[in-house]
Amino acid sequence: MKIYIKQIKGGITAPKGFVSAGVHAGIKKSRLDMAILASAKPAVIAGVFTSNKVQGEHVKYCRRIIKSGVANAVVINSGCANACVGPQGAKDALEMASVSAEALTLPLGRKVPANTVYVCSTGTIGIKMPMDKIRKGIDLCAKSLSPANGDLTAKAIMTTDTKDKQVSIEIKAGGVNVRIAGIAKGAGMIEPNMATMLSFITTDANVSRSALDACLKEAVAESFNRISIDGDQSCNDTVFILANGASGSQTLSSAHKDWPVFVYAVKYVSLVLAKMIVTDGEGATKFVTVTAKNARNVQEAKKAVRAVANSLLVKTSWFGCDPNWGRIIDAVGYSGASMVTEKTDIYFDGRRVVKNGCRAADVSLEDIEKVYRQRSFEIVIDLKCGKATETVYTCDCSQEYVRINSEYMT
Amino acid sequence: MKIYIKQIKGGITAPKGFVSAGVHAGIKKSRLDMAILASAKPAVIAGVFTSNKVQGEHVKYCRRIIKSGVANAVVINSGCANACVGPQGAKDALEMASVSAEALTLPLGRKVPANTVYVCSTGTIGIKMPMDKIRKGIDLCAKSLSPANGDLTAKAIMTTDTKDKQVSIEIKAGGVNVRIAGIAKGAGMIEPNMATMLSFITTDANVSRSALDACLKEAVAESFNRISIDGDQSCNDTVFILANGASGSQTLSSAHKDWPVFVYAVKYVSLVLAKMIVTDGEGATKFVTVTAKNARNVQEAKKAVRAVANSLLVKTSWFGCDPNWGRIIDAVGYSGASMVTEKTDIYFDGRRVVKNGCRAADVSLEDIEKVYRQRSFEIVIDLKCGKATETVYTCDCSQEYVRINSEYMT
Repeated sequence: MKIYIKQIKGGITAPKGFVSAGVHAGIKKSRLDMAILASAKPAVIAGVFTSNKVQGEHVKYCRRIIKSGVANAVVINSGCANACVGPQGAKDALEMASVSAEALTLPLGRKVPANTVYVCSTGTIGIKMPMDKIRKGIDLCAKSLSPANGDLTAKAIMTTDTKDKQVSIEIKAGGVNVRIAGIAKGAGMIEPNMATMLSFITTDANVSRSALDACLKEAVAESFNRISIDGDQSCNDTVFILANGASGSQTLSSAHKDWPVFVYAVKYVSLVLAKMIVTDGEGATKFVTVTAKNARNVQEAKKAVRAVANSLLVKTSWFGCDPNWGRIIDAVGYSGASMVTEKTDIYFDGRRVVKNGCRAADVSLEDIEKVYRQRSFEIVIDLKCGKATETVYTCDCSQEYVRINSEYMT
Repeated sequence: MKIYIKQIKGGITAPKGFVSAGVHAGIKKSRLDMAILASAKPAVIAGVFTSNKVQGEHVKYCRRIIKSGVANAVVINSGCANACVGPQGAKDALEMASVSAEALTLPLGRKVPANTVYVCSTGTIGIKMPMDKIRKGIDLCAKSLSPANGDLTAKAIMTTDTKDKQVSIEIKAGGVNVRIAGIAKGAGMIEPNMATMLSFITTDANVSRSALDACLKEAVAESFNRISIDGDQSCNDTVFILANGASGSQTLSSAHKDWPVFVYAVKYVSLVLAKMIVTDGEGATKFVTVTAKNARNVQEAKKAVRAVANSLLVKTSWFGCDPNWGRIIDAVGYSGASMVTEKTDIYFDGRRVVKNGCRAADVSLEDIEKVYRQRSFEIVIDLKCGKATETVYTCDCSQEYVRINSEYMT
């Protein structure tokens, strides 16, 4: 199957029928800190949330209302996580939705039920929501909603991100041109099973609710759940996809011949965003793809790649271009995956560097250092214990990471 | 039971009948890098080794010979791990033992079987042993064995340690004064289930083999397996205890009334050394005790304390005295331990800082910062889900940690 994906401009509002805004409400000193994404017509929505037992209030609220499958808007604040603040947190999440619903009546030209407005918060845990600023931000957003605000919206959801993360594409599906776009924020607390990560995907395709749900779960498994920056899982991770049908496409679902094309495109958007998150990891200087192959089973392959990707010793050696490859096999050794040192091979960018548990005769430490000096490289660990494969996208750990996170609140 | 422990001088050779040496063999540029610890009479030995599937050659060798339960000496090199080097590694470990056995004949005044000489290696993984230097080091050590070399021996096993780690004590047991002493090296790759950690404990008590074994396992579980610096488990971790009976004590075992005193003393020595390792963790500026109480079971209590102790975000916030307490509860949330945010309490140095999942009304962020500004503090997480308790000793993560480990080999 050859799938043609066309890159287009316009960010999150590139798909028809979406408007957005990004404003400075004063939660953060000077950077943009609130955003609204809204659909002209009610959209179908699917979501995936953090697996952390500690959950931000928006996660609890959205888990409840998403059962309806209908969304008119998403309102986002960055700077305050609204997590671990006691009973007030739930009230604040609810108020954020109802104030937004009210404010959206005029720009959308129709009455918006509060329980179709999704809220997202990201930022410091344990700080109460500055509701005056939130209300002001909602008002500013509602007044500036436009299909031309993609950049501002992408910027307004950032916390320690240094770059906004956007992608928009066009495919042919369901008889018309269909657009899919996404934005994301990441930076720290990034680990498989979602992260301090928010991502919003829009499409103007017509998609059945259950199909959209299955498609998003699959896409998240292969993208956002395959990235790791520091091994910390956040309590606020959320990914939403909204499909408003404004393209006039036939209804897409697994029964439609173009379904694989649509799923492929959503996976593409998710993976591009996930990789952008890793590349912009706090203090990161390198993008590293770690794959375990021939593991006994997928669970063990995951254990192996996560142990390597989360090993501070491995990450710091990448940062310093220190050819200390032994730390990689050491991490596999304690990962819990079945392995035998004497039959483990490790490939760096396709070249076998470790053969049967020790450095290959034709590979020098300088060769390894040369690989580490690149901005991006790939490590494949061949466990020779079975047939399962798993990949994780990660980054190095620099002194800058420590600096950022030792003075986050102060 | 009141147990009187007397601190004494003399380091690892404070117990009667032990001699040692620490020399510079040239494995490292200028620092001491080889040591021998020997007993005038054959000693009873017990050992605990890394649980990593990747194992240094000394671990495989010592696991084999320790079945006899007899030891005459331990020979240690620091700088080269002798791990992941192929079949030559096993030969080098064997040769290190046999050359040492030969060299010890003269100073010990008796023939020493090679399979009663234990070897330990620590340092970079994947580098072949510089056997010329090792042989030279053994020769230098054998010529300088003395009961007065405690300091040199403690220094010679160090890698990135900034301070040597020694403790020696005297107790009354088995009818006489009995001495117990220990040295250790740690610094990086430190995580429960042992670490890039070597520790040697000597005693001049008479102890039955099986009792010594049980005593060491129990002591390690409560000390070296309760520390974590960076979450990386090394492939070379080893703890040995040698009991040579030179004090003339009655034979101690679980049947003897003084057995609890002896076990208490061994635990004391192990815990002092374990805490010294954490205090001297690579780049560490703070010593932190993390306890989970009222967990559903011990396994879950361990998961909770390890998640907190290994969270890079928690560790960097400690380093920067950033009162970001939310990162602690977030880590408990993803640890896998049963917990409910709304009933979780967290105590800092005995004061309840988090009550039912949010910051207690009478505690300010400045109060938390004040705790973090100390050189040492304690965090207790009350999960209210059961009755199990577990503790881990850990440290913060500084930019210095990243610097050290990004240029370890270079």
